[in-house]
Amino acid sequence: MRRGHNLGAVGEFNQAVILDLIRRAPDGLSRVEVAQASGLSAQTASNITRRLIDGGLVREGERLITGPGKPRTLLRLNASSRYTVGVHLDPTVITYALLDLAGSVVADHRARTPTAPDPAGVIADMAHEISAILERQSIPREQVLGVGIAAPGPLDASRGNVLDPPMLDGWDVVPLRDALSQATGFPVVLEKDVTAAAIAELWVDSGPRRDNFAFFYYGTGIGIGLVINHEVLRGASDNAGDMGHIMVQADGPVCSCGRRGCVGDLVVPHRIVQRALAAGLIAADSPVDRADFDDVDRLFTEFTVLAMRHDAVSREIVMGVATQISRAIVSIVNLLDVDTIVFGGPFWRRIEPALLGAIRHLVNTDPALIPKHPIHIENSGIGEDVAAIGAGCLVLDQSLAPHTSALLISR
Amino acid sequence: MRRGHNLGAVGEFNQAVILDLIRRAPDGLSRVEVAQASGLSAQTASNITRRLIDGGLVREGERLITGPGKPRTLLRLNASSRYTVGVHLDPTVITYALLDLAGSVVADHRARTPTAPDPAGVIADMAHEISAILERQSIPREQVLGVGIAAPGPLDASRGNVLDPPMLDGWDVVPLRDALSQATGFPVVLEKDVTAAAIAELWVDSGPRRDNFAFFYYGTGIGIGLVINHEVLRGASDNAGDMGHIMVQADGPVCSCGRRGCVGDLVVPHRIVQRALAAGLIAADSPVDRADFDDVDRLFTEFTVLAMRHDAVSREIVMGVATQISRAIVSIVNLLDVDTIVFGGPFWRRIEPALLGAIRHLVNTDPALIPKHPIHIENSGIGEDVAAIGAGCLVLDQSLAPHTSALLISR
Repeated sequence: MRRGHNLGAVGEFNQAVILDLIRRAPDGLSRVEVAQASGLSAQTASNITRRLIDGGLVREGERLITGPGKPRTLLRLNASSRYTVGVHLDPTVITYALLDLAGSVVADHRARTPTAPDPAGVIADMAHEISAILERQSIPREQVLGVGIAAPGPLDASRGNVLDPPMLDGWDVVPLRDALSQATGFPVVLEKDVTAAAIAELWVDSGPRRDNFAFFYYGTGIGIGLVINHEVLRGASDNAGDMGHIMVQADGPVCSCGRRGCVGDLVVPHRIVQRALAAGLIAADSPVDRADFDDVDRLFTEFTVLAMRHDAVSREIVMGVATQISRAIVSIVNLLDVDTIVFGGPFWRRIEPALLGAIRHLVNTDPALIPKHPIHIENSGIGEDVAAIGAGCLVLDQSLAPHTSALLISR
Repeated sequence: MRRGHNLGAVGEFNQAVILDLIRRAPDGLSRVEVAQASGLSAQTASNITRRLIDGGLVREGERLITGPGKPRTLLRLNASSRYTVGVHLDPTVITYALLDLAGSVVADHRARTPTAPDPAGVIADMAHEISAILERQSIPREQVLGVGIAAPGPLDASRGNVLDPPMLDGWDVVPLRDALSQATGFPVVLEKDVTAAAIAELWVDSGPRRDNFAFFYYGTGIGIGLVINHEVLRGASDNAGDMGHIMVQADGPVCSCGRRGCVGDLVVPHRIVQRALAAGLIAADSPVDRADFDDVDRLFTEFTVLAMRHDAVSREIVMGVATQISRAIVSIVNLLDVDTIVFGGPFWRRIEPALLGAIRHLVNTDPALIPKHPIHIENSGIGEDVAAIGAGCLVLDQSLAPHTSALLISR
């Protein structure tokens, strides 16, 4: 049921709109431009920018003389006024990203995720590392807005619990959000990894193609972050974004779910490594399983280097993967009518030269594609730490970005 | 990019919120209850209800004495103050539904869609039938808010064009919206059929399970209407909701798209009829194609009657269809994390006794299902005319319902 409109929230919403405008204008904006772009009155815009300057979030830059009138002072984000820490818990690696208010990465760090099932130990390590990052950068704790943590689903988001994610043994119902908050003393927000990645894209890249898009996350596993009408789609229990069991190959191997040819079972790095091993393209001393993280990583790199030679055998493997991913993408585009798919994640950059063009061609020429507009297939502009950066952006987003839902009176 | 908040729209938004509250309370609401439920001040709520009464949309009913204070006057929707006409263009049948302001069907009508490709003739027929319905009900034209038309996708919604829907020969780029508006003199809104059906569900049933749901439309073809956070998901070009090419059976027949076992090719009525014919359960003089609409309709009914006997052969067909639909539903639930699937459409009611329980069981026990919450599998409370009713509700929705997007300043 809709609730009435919350007049008290209008000021905060408009403040978030203006901060968002200034944040997205690296060359600065004058007060007149802020008013024009926001659609607010000059007086309202001016009052809000004053508050933002007083709070240290925005600073006045150089004066711009454009005509006979009063010179215009450019407003810029004061990026070093606030910070957040994003953490990405992956079965293989824990990634940390310290972000400033502009969403720029000030520092980052990676550590191998312990394979022994010890959530309490992992959380203690995380808290220690967060403190160490802030100390190394000499950032006082009061300038930190909070910590965002991205974790594989399924999650119980309302309680802040990680449920039983695949490949993280011993992580059954772990209260990650509250435990990390207690260990660090910071407010913590928990988000599904693919949703965090989509938030990073929204926050860092504001191009016109970013209203309806899907973020294809290519890591140890795959997933899809969804953005509809410029807001992330989280779903009824905040677990949206699982695409692993979309069937894409009728004669594919039997998945753990009992169906054949599920995309999440076919296109992940350890499967590509297994196919390349079976074809004799690369070699290993013993069979490689998905749990052999280091071997998978090394052999995957070997394969992607070989694939650049475009020999028939590696090309067959690459085209198979491109076809499988494209079919899943077409199912998603048909369902949601998104017009852009952004690809990223820890394993993406290595295989992208071989895959991206093929996927672009296959998706846009697929006879099963329903929408009549072109589907843009793009690389993420963000690096391999996209989920950690997204987790940090999540804190920025919750603290600062305008959400129309905030305009409704809460129950 | 977000734009600022439109203060001028607040009044209209709050008016829509209050009208929505009164509409959803068939037993009436007092002014105090309206203020409490909307979260608005007593004065604001009272001013708005006064405007609604003056405009004839709301009427004052009996007075309620609940204590020593002033008796409370109950406010009720004046359902017969405004009307809309919903039209559903289907390859088989054109359905008309005259709705009052409460979304109740005042009158309806069905006509066979001409098989000859003649869009202009069909549009002229529609205009004629709309006038005839209004005349038969003695409804003056000035009480009609507009006409909503639901059509199969793909659509060019911005231009109001129907593109090349399957099974509607000759309907390549037909300006349906503007042509029908010209022929009737009413404003016309065009919507994809499955989205219209989802709007009908939102409008008519406001239960707690209606925030994140998918409407499975079972007609000559299948489709899925999506509601996320209580608003319909239309997508970048308003063509969201196509699920036909989700693969669900590895050894299924080859679809027109070249893949095997696409759900939209497997579970539609003419395929069930063909399977029942092949199994000797029912008989026809000649082979039945999807274009033999009358034969498919009659034989489908014959099969569904037989299927109630639960013999081994019909049970095998039914369980095959239930499995195929369930697998597609699981893909959609995993992707979007909806918690409810509502089933309806012209062919649904006949096969529902055989299918609904099986689908409920299969979806909720599927090893591929990711979210941990139960998935509610329900029948639509609306009849077989759901898309026509939804098209009418679309006009009500656009005219009356609160949308947070209306709070943003338009470009």
